[in-house]
Amino acid sequence: MKDSNLTVTAYDWVPHFAQGHVRDLRVRWALEEAGFSYNVEVMPQGTQKKPPHLKRQPFGQIPTLEIDGRSMFESGAIVWRIAEASSALLPGDGAARDQVLSWVFAGLNTIEPPIAMLATLELFVTDKDAAARLRPEIAAMVAGVLNRFVAALADAPHIVGDFSVADIVLTTVLRDVPADLLNERPSLHAYVERHTSRPAFKTALAGQMKPFVENAAKYEDAT
Amino acid sequence: MKDSNLTVTAYDWVPHFAQGHVRDLRVRWALEEAGFSYNVEVMPQGTQKKPPHLKRQPFGQIPTLEIDGRSMFESGAIVWRIAEASSALLPGDGAARDQVLSWVFAGLNTIEPPIAMLATLELFVTDKDAAARLRPEIAAMVAGVLNRFVAALADAPHIVGDFSVADIVLTTVLRDVPADLLNERPSLHAYVERHTSRPAFKTALAGQMKPFVENAAKYEDAT
Repeated sequence: MKDSNLTVTAYDWVPHFAQGHVRDLRVRWALEEAGFSYNVEVMPQGTQKKPPHLKRQPFGQIPTLEIDGRSMFESGAIVWRIAEASSALLPGDGAARDQVLSWVFAGLNTIEPPIAMLATLELFVTDKDAAARLRPEIAAMVAGVLNRFVAALADAPHIVGDFSVADIVLTTVLRDVPADLLNERPSLHAYVERHTSRPAFKTALAGQMKPFVENAAKYEDAT
Repeated sequence: MKDSNLTVTAYDWVPHFAQGHVRDLRVRWALEEAGFSYNVEVMPQGTQKKPPHLKRQPFGQIPTLEIDGRSMFESGAIVWRIAEASSALLPGDGAARDQVLSWVFAGLNTIEPPIAMLATLELFVTDKDAAARLRPEIAAMVAGVLNRFVAALADAPHIVGDFSVADIVLTTVLRDVPADLLNERPSLHAYVERHTSRPAFKTALAGQMKPFVENAAKYEDAT
């Protein structure tokens, strides 16, 4: 993959609440950590739901990754694919590799679902009163998985041995936890800070944000 | 992995709504399709939240898979690990493999989250009135991803070429869609039927159900 022609898809603009949180971020981050050079195809808002893009991304989302002209999708799948090609993201030892794989899925299929549910209630549901009534129950579910994560991390800097793709997935999931739930868990807050202070993360974030700033006038005048 | 000593963890009993839907099902199914022999460690209800199990499964869930004495967790991670070791579950061609990987993550991180949210509203939330008010909005989100899946499947029997681990993940996710949303999409219903009629699925399901039947008296007398 190192010497392949790689292209990530990203948006030219998203609403403010999503800026810095779109899922091309973790793909850019993984590519930066791996030291793989890549192109970015910046897609105008709306084109993600049109047939040409649906052909490579059936749900009309970004990111996709093109590898020498063939395409794959889902940020989790893509970062795992990148990790398979880079010793910077995946340990060589089989047992450690299995733990990293386990944590990649735990991040996306155990930790993220209640966090995403909380975000759905706050951002996407129109019955705001019913959503507000459910928030405490869903926040308690988020707290439950966060407490399990904190216990598993203990005082380690990374979730499995050295830095790995599992930390990329977990950090991008955990930085979307509401501040009240994050800040009352100092080791969780420190875990996120430790990883978002990495140069590769900062480069990835700046890359995602650049077109949003350039296109702000175009989209924000219209709203 | 074929000649490894493999042990899956499962429960000795779960409440009726969960019977046949616990996540060791997809691991058993993958092992059956691959033709790998395995042991099952049946855990008494409650012990999954105790320290010995938390050491191998940080969230106190099942399944785990022990491979020659070392453990991994998360059903998605485990079935991917099994697929890597079996040509019955993963195509040899790189492009097809990347598509299968993409669909494994799409199943668990794009299709399942709204389905799980619907289940959470119906089963786990105590404010039933607020939950009922939100159901139509969340059901619309489920319908959205189901329609995208149906369009991507078109009239193919499996999601990527021949049967693969992606079909195991997608089928186990999609059979938890409420009947009203499933049955109004004939190709989706047929997709689930096609895969749940496979002998390996039936063996896996019977394996999960067996201890629930045997232990019904023990647990159901007490409730």
